[in-house]
Amino acid sequence: MNPLNEPPPVALPETGSPLYERLADHYRRVIAAGTLAPGDRMPSVRALMSQHRVSLSTAIQVFRSLEDAGWLQARPRAGYFVRRAPASRLANVAEPEIPSLAEPARYVGLHERISRVIERAQAFPDALNLGGATADAMLYPTQRLQALASRILRRRPTLLTEVGEDGGAIELRQAVAKRALSSGVSVAPDDVLVTSGGVEAVNLALRAVAQPGDTIAVESPAFFGLLQILESLGLRALEIPTSPTTGLSLEALDIASTACPDLKALVVVPNLQNPLGCVMPDARKAELVQLCARRGVALIEDEPYRELVESSEPARPLKAWDRDGGVIYCASLNKVLAPGMRLGWMASGRWQARVRLLKFAQTRHNESLAQLVAAEFIGSGAYDRHLHQLREKLRTQREASADAIGRYFPAGTRLSLPPGGLLLWVALPEGASSDALFEAALPHGIRLAPGSIFSNSDRFRSFIRLSCPAPFDYRIDTALRQLGTLAAELGRSA
Amino acid sequence: MNPLNEPPPVALPETGSPLYERLADHYRRVIAAGTLAPGDRMPSVRALMSQHRVSLSTAIQVFRSLEDAGWLQARPRAGYFVRRAPASRLANVAEPEIPSLAEPARYVGLHERISRVIERAQAFPDALNLGGATADAMLYPTQRLQALASRILRRRPTLLTEVGEDGGAIELRQAVAKRALSSGVSVAPDDVLVTSGGVEAVNLALRAVAQPGDTIAVESPAFFGLLQILESLGLRALEIPTSPTTGLSLEALDIASTACPDLKALVVVPNLQNPLGCVMPDARKAELVQLCARRGVALIEDEPYRELVESSEPARPLKAWDRDGGVIYCASLNKVLAPGMRLGWMASGRWQARVRLLKFAQTRHNESLAQLVAAEFIGSGAYDRHLHQLREKLRTQREASADAIGRYFPAGTRLSLPPGGLLLWVALPEGASSDALFEAALPHGIRLAPGSIFSNSDRFRSFIRLSCPAPFDYRIDTALRQLGTLAAELGRSA
Repeated sequence: MNPLNEPPPVALPETGSPLYERLADHYRRVIAAGTLAPGDRMPSVRALMSQHRVSLSTAIQVFRSLEDAGWLQARPRAGYFVRRAPASRLANVAEPEIPSLAEPARYVGLHERISRVIERAQAFPDALNLGGATADAMLYPTQRLQALASRILRRRPTLLTEVGEDGGAIELRQAVAKRALSSGVSVAPDDVLVTSGGVEAVNLALRAVAQPGDTIAVESPAFFGLLQILESLGLRALEIPTSPTTGLSLEALDIASTACPDLKALVVVPNLQNPLGCVMPDARKAELVQLCARRGVALIEDEPYRELVESSEPARPLKAWDRDGGVIYCASLNKVLAPGMRLGWMASGRWQARVRLLKFAQTRHNESLAQLVAAEFIGSGAYDRHLHQLREKLRTQREASADAIGRYFPAGTRLSLPPGGLLLWVALPEGASSDALFEAALPHGIRLAPGSIFSNSDRFRSFIRLSCPAPFDYRIDTALRQLGTLAAELGRSA
Repeated sequence: MNPLNEPPPVALPETGSPLYERLADHYRRVIAAGTLAPGDRMPSVRALMSQHRVSLSTAIQVFRSLEDAGWLQARPRAGYFVRRAPASRLANVAEPEIPSLAEPARYVGLHERISRVIERAQAFPDALNLGGATADAMLYPTQRLQALASRILRRRPTLLTEVGEDGGAIELRQAVAKRALSSGVSVAPDDVLVTSGGVEAVNLALRAVAQPGDTIAVESPAFFGLLQILESLGLRALEIPTSPTTGLSLEALDIASTACPDLKALVVVPNLQNPLGCVMPDARKAELVQLCARRGVALIEDEPYRELVESSEPARPLKAWDRDGGVIYCASLNKVLAPGMRLGWMASGRWQARVRLLKFAQTRHNESLAQLVAAEFIGSGAYDRHLHQLREKLRTQREASADAIGRYFPAGTRLSLPPGGLLLWVALPEGASSDALFEAALPHGIRLAPGSIFSNSDRFRSFIRLSCPAPFDYRIDTALRQLGTLAAELGRSA
């Protein structure tokens, strides 16, 4: 009998904290001491109950708390296991400085730089792509969606040849509205507008609240696609320092919105920010919604990754704290369900009528088949099972890559391991140029995203975004070792 | 033996016109005299050759010229038949007046009016819809497309779950570029950008060439969707008088572009204009392209209906005369192939780089499945067979509706029968309000499109657009009779 399934009775410290917390602390020490090693199976719930004489609910709370803190991971039908140590050798990415004065807003002029990066990368079509932000097709429910599509086509033979529904198929609007409830967002199907991915949703939101020349606050670093949207709409970007662990700095936003009284909107990714991977704590989410409402700043929430947050409860969007329709919620199914179906949706609060006009005049409605496939999948239990598996796979892939970066990259490299998703934001040692690393890596068959495309400034010139789209294997390990070697060489020559 | 297959030898007038024209004239007289009645089969090509002692090519020219003039219609594998008489009882819609001074450009404020019309119409979901601009699903190759979709999904199982191609699937870009050749347009697959229907193409084109506040020339009347795009982009519309038979008035455009030197673009539908149904003669197309080039006005060509023109040669787009990249060509597959697939494409001439940025920032690429289905269908012989059938069906439906309007509508009603498509633009007798007719028809279960939504002015308040989306039957006949009665009543009370 495995002794780990029957830990010896322990004396818990008699402090004022709840029983489950004291018990969780005990197991943290056991794991940190190596008594339970990464990959080991934890004692079962039943074992915990009998060993520690605690109730079922206390035992479950212990597992939840350890899982939320990243010590354990649940495997379906197999129990809880000790996780790998988080990116052990690497220090966290430094917190940004919050300047006492806001920087000026600037027109975005990034498109050429981004196009050059994309073109260069496409010149190496066989390269290992660690520069994207979407998981491999094999991580999505390919067969199930394909079967659903064929079945729906048989059931609705005129789907491809009849005009679709304005605003989106009612089936999908109902499915996403119902699902949003569990994350604290209450929207009616009529409040939902189906879009061509999250990109169109954010585009429509910005067009609804701002005119060319207006200023929009964004996270810094920000997803380059957002900066391209601002550029395409002739908007100015005001970059707000953003913490790699807790997200957008409310202090900096406060300073900026005072200095820039005609700030029209803030675009923010509160859950698994791209590229940082941070999740804003709930208290800060609530505070942010209030701050924007007070200052009359439209809050555009971009949520491509929320369902990938690894926590026992669904991560909450800012929209859950919205009381006066000031939050435009933009969701996407590209990263969580099916990159090839190009589906997103939005709930536009008080800008709903204007957003509907813009969508109608921009692209009409979406094509119907993908919408019905998504609606049927989301409405079934299969969606939660898929998401659970996807999160587990991404966690394993991310942690293995982080370990490899820790092994291979030069001293001084920093990395904050995010609580979900497939992106790693890596700070190279002082002075290293990520543009140079990007160029040097291509002939070795490796694509990455250089930090220079995530800001209108050159603040992130020493950062790279590495993605973990596929199961970790020898090819990825070799590529990361190669990248580490190149980074070290560039550091020496800098 | 049917004597019609062996017409007696005739003496042709010995004029200077070519032999085929004299022979065609002879048959025009035979048809007009009723010797060959609507629905009768024409003598075969061989019969013509032997009866008139003419060559094969002359005989074929006779049939082509009679078909182009609307006297004959070809039926696959059955020969040529005499067509119904064109909307006999009704006079043509009057030609527009060309003012000697341009009217001022105006911001568009139509969205509320259009939304009200759409909302009112949707309140009668069971009504017969004669207000749309898309044919019934049964007129498109539903089964074939459905089978293709299922087959492609089996062959490319990760299509729904992998990221698609920027700019559109290469298969579709190749297929439409190749097909464009036959209409005189030479574009490379790399010049083609796949869009979410023609609406997104026109939207991107306007965003590429103009800023909010700029002036855009449009046909008057114009498709209301275009006016909504202008409104959504904060552009001003300069309405150019447009002939119901020959299209946009070049004289009026000349006057307007002189009076308005900062005119940024013209949006025009040269083939089967919506709502007029007119086709611009080739000589005028060439002249228009030259005029715009001379004046530095971007020419945005919107082509949803071109493939529906009933002529022996493919109708030519303006783009065929484009020498310096000044024409942005916008095509759509919604009306000709599959309304539910939401596909369009564009070739943006000298604005290509800017259009690509805008598309990328607006909606990224389209979803792949529909693109591959369309590419395979267009690349096969099935597309031409489908278009041939669609044109035939639409012609029969349109002519039957025009006949019924001639029978039932009050004296003074006018109608120009267009050479293709499914739209009829009907001028009610002086003083009748199409808004009133729209409202009066709804409780009778009939939807139509009132003229008021096709212009920023009230110039078309006595016009209605009626569509002929389905095979003519008792229900449509009854609806048109009812509409005629209502129009007569409204005329008396006006």
